[in-house]
Amino acid sequence: MTGADDELSSVLVVGAGLMGTSVALALRARGVAVRLSDRDPATSRLAVALGAGEQARPDDPPTDLAVLAVPPGAVAPLLAQLQARGAAAAYTDLASTKGSPQRAVEATGCRAADFVGGHPLAGRERSGPGAARADLFEGRPWVLTPSPVTAERTLARGLALARLCGATPVVMDPDAHDRAVALVSHAPQVLASLVAARLTGASDAEVGLAGQGVRDVTRIAASDPGLWREILASNAGAVAEVLAGVAADLAGVLAALQEVAAAPAPDAGAADPRLEPVVRALREGNAGRARLPGKHGQAPARYATVPVLVPDKPGELARLLTDTGEAGINVEDMTIEHSPGQPVGLVHLYVRPGVAEELVAALRTLGWAVHW
Amino acid sequence: MTGADDELSSVLVVGAGLMGTSVALALRARGVAVRLSDRDPATSRLAVALGAGEQARPDDPPTDLAVLAVPPGAVAPLLAQLQARGAAAAYTDLASTKGSPQRAVEATGCRAADFVGGHPLAGRERSGPGAARADLFEGRPWVLTPSPVTAERTLARGLALARLCGATPVVMDPDAHDRAVALVSHAPQVLASLVAARLTGASDAEVGLAGQGVRDVTRIAASDPGLWREILASNAGAVAEVLAGVAADLAGVLAALQEVAAAPAPDAGAADPRLEPVVRALREGNAGRARLPGKHGQAPARYATVPVLVPDKPGELARLLTDTGEAGINVEDMTIEHSPGQPVGLVHLYVRPGVAEELVAALRTLGWAVHW
Repeated sequence: MTGADDELSSVLVVGAGLMGTSVALALRARGVAVRLSDRDPATSRLAVALGAGEQARPDDPPTDLAVLAVPPGAVAPLLAQLQARGAAAAYTDLASTKGSPQRAVEATGCRAADFVGGHPLAGRERSGPGAARADLFEGRPWVLTPSPVTAERTLARGLALARLCGATPVVMDPDAHDRAVALVSHAPQVLASLVAARLTGASDAEVGLAGQGVRDVTRIAASDPGLWREILASNAGAVAEVLAGVAADLAGVLAALQEVAAAPAPDAGAADPRLEPVVRALREGNAGRARLPGKHGQAPARYATVPVLVPDKPGELARLLTDTGEAGINVEDMTIEHSPGQPVGLVHLYVRPGVAEELVAALRTLGWAVHW
Repeated sequence: MTGADDELSSVLVVGAGLMGTSVALALRARGVAVRLSDRDPATSRLAVALGAGEQARPDDPPTDLAVLAVPPGAVAPLLAQLQARGAAAAYTDLASTKGSPQRAVEATGCRAADFVGGHPLAGRERSGPGAARADLFEGRPWVLTPSPVTAERTLARGLALARLCGATPVVMDPDAHDRAVALVSHAPQVLASLVAARLTGASDAEVGLAGQGVRDVTRIAASDPGLWREILASNAGAVAEVLAGVAADLAGVLAALQEVAAAPAPDAGAADPRLEPVVRALREGNAGRARLPGKHGQAPARYATVPVLVPDKPGELARLLTDTGEAGINVEDMTIEHSPGQPVGLVHLYVRPGVAEELVAALRTLGWAVHW
């Protein structure tokens, strides 16, 4: 270690996939000396060729930090190997679950004081060093999960790594991290897959009625099953806990709907008391959705929605956003609704409520069909 | 009736909410004579003031078609009233379920030959005549659900209505319609609400780790519980059938995860055979997601994704899309990923695979940070 505890001048990255190589590229861009290895020599050669650092060698001097960019189950055995040869002064990993690697590290005789778990919340659809990007972590949360035995200096180096990669460090307990990602990532993935799975037997006529709602609910159902099997296996307990809650609520909703279906109320629109579990689920859904923070980690923001009809041809979306920008208004978010059968799309522009009327007026003056 | 069976020169709209008033505005824009009524006189007065037609009177001559823009449970009683006074030559409705209104129409002594169920798949977050738009139905599917007793001339008028409103008519059996919307709309709504409901007790730290995935899965959980209680009540059987399938799959996944959590495999990454129900759900999720048609009702399209970093300030998104349009490339879809903590957004441009490399090259030449 050549600098203070929170400075990194040299880093070893073990595992040159998407995540490891992206860390290496980010560190190289900040002038850190990086050495890389991978159990597949071709993979590490490609990462080196991409400018991610130098090939690591067994007799290299110790680095300030080693980053273990391997699956959760491989962290503890790899850490034991690296510590045995004194590869680095401190160690962290990038795996997407933190409890089971931490327990394995503490159970297998590693020097746990020198290890801090880490999880940058970033990724891509593609994998391997060729998909790596120096800016993969920019603006993303990077969770660090010190245990009671983790040394302060080790945590400081983990924090330095996150900051050098442009991420926002967040410190959490390993099991709290796992419960959090079960709730906001792993369980939603399972349920998106289960909803999408219902469509496998659907007819063309049935899927022809699909709108933006089911598209949004099932978007992540297109994810890689192999990757998700591994994530779910290493966080099985926390994911099961969330899913058990969903299953209990679902059983209540299902029983209520089956009861109503068996003996419909004379007026289906009336406040049938048998539907109480359904109404409760819908209301709690409203409340839970409102818990999701807005952009940039701020408190939940209520944007105004300005729907505009846009001809589906090159340049029209650009013209809309140019007109919006020239009105001095920032688009906070945007969705494009697919219109079956017509060459026109409905674009929703999300803007701060205070500027919505101004935007509507400006766009209408310019001839846009605003659905306001 | 002054024209052929598939022409409409006069229409009565009963129910001047969002849907009824939007139909009226669309018909007025095509020169059709429209009369409106609502059980709330203030509502129909507002619709008339908005140019949606003239106030209907009990002694009006019969119109070519009457549109019943009321909840599913109100369709049959209203139809009986209207037919008793000979209000129109043919009748249709706009309710979002079709089986139970059709059965009620046939059971309550209405002239069912003169009625065809209808469901335009369009809507807005807002309600009431003030939110109505003449172009609400443009490019949307409009399902018509003739029963064996529906007369050809009645269906022809329903089809004419859908076309005059700019929608794409689709003919289906009433119960087939209800099974379809249970699958692609009603059951996904329930599950989005159940996933979001889990977030009600979450801490700020937990929801701070939320990414685009859970945002997409839970977007429609923000929907109106009162509206959805009514929809789910009138389609309880079909929704229950879809949810029962999800519940069975979920039970299998949950049992597998609980078994793994109770006795983790030594290497969580290995192909643990106990996880087979989980892997099957993920794979079927892939297959089901691929069933959703692409834009404009075409066969599923595989778009290439081009991720670009965009500074979060007015004009930058416009500049990106201007540059894309000037490269002659059409953006098929687009998402904006929220980056917590940094004033930069990751925008995903979806384009036809054949043009993605050209776009990447063009954007890089212009200095854009493309994550390709």
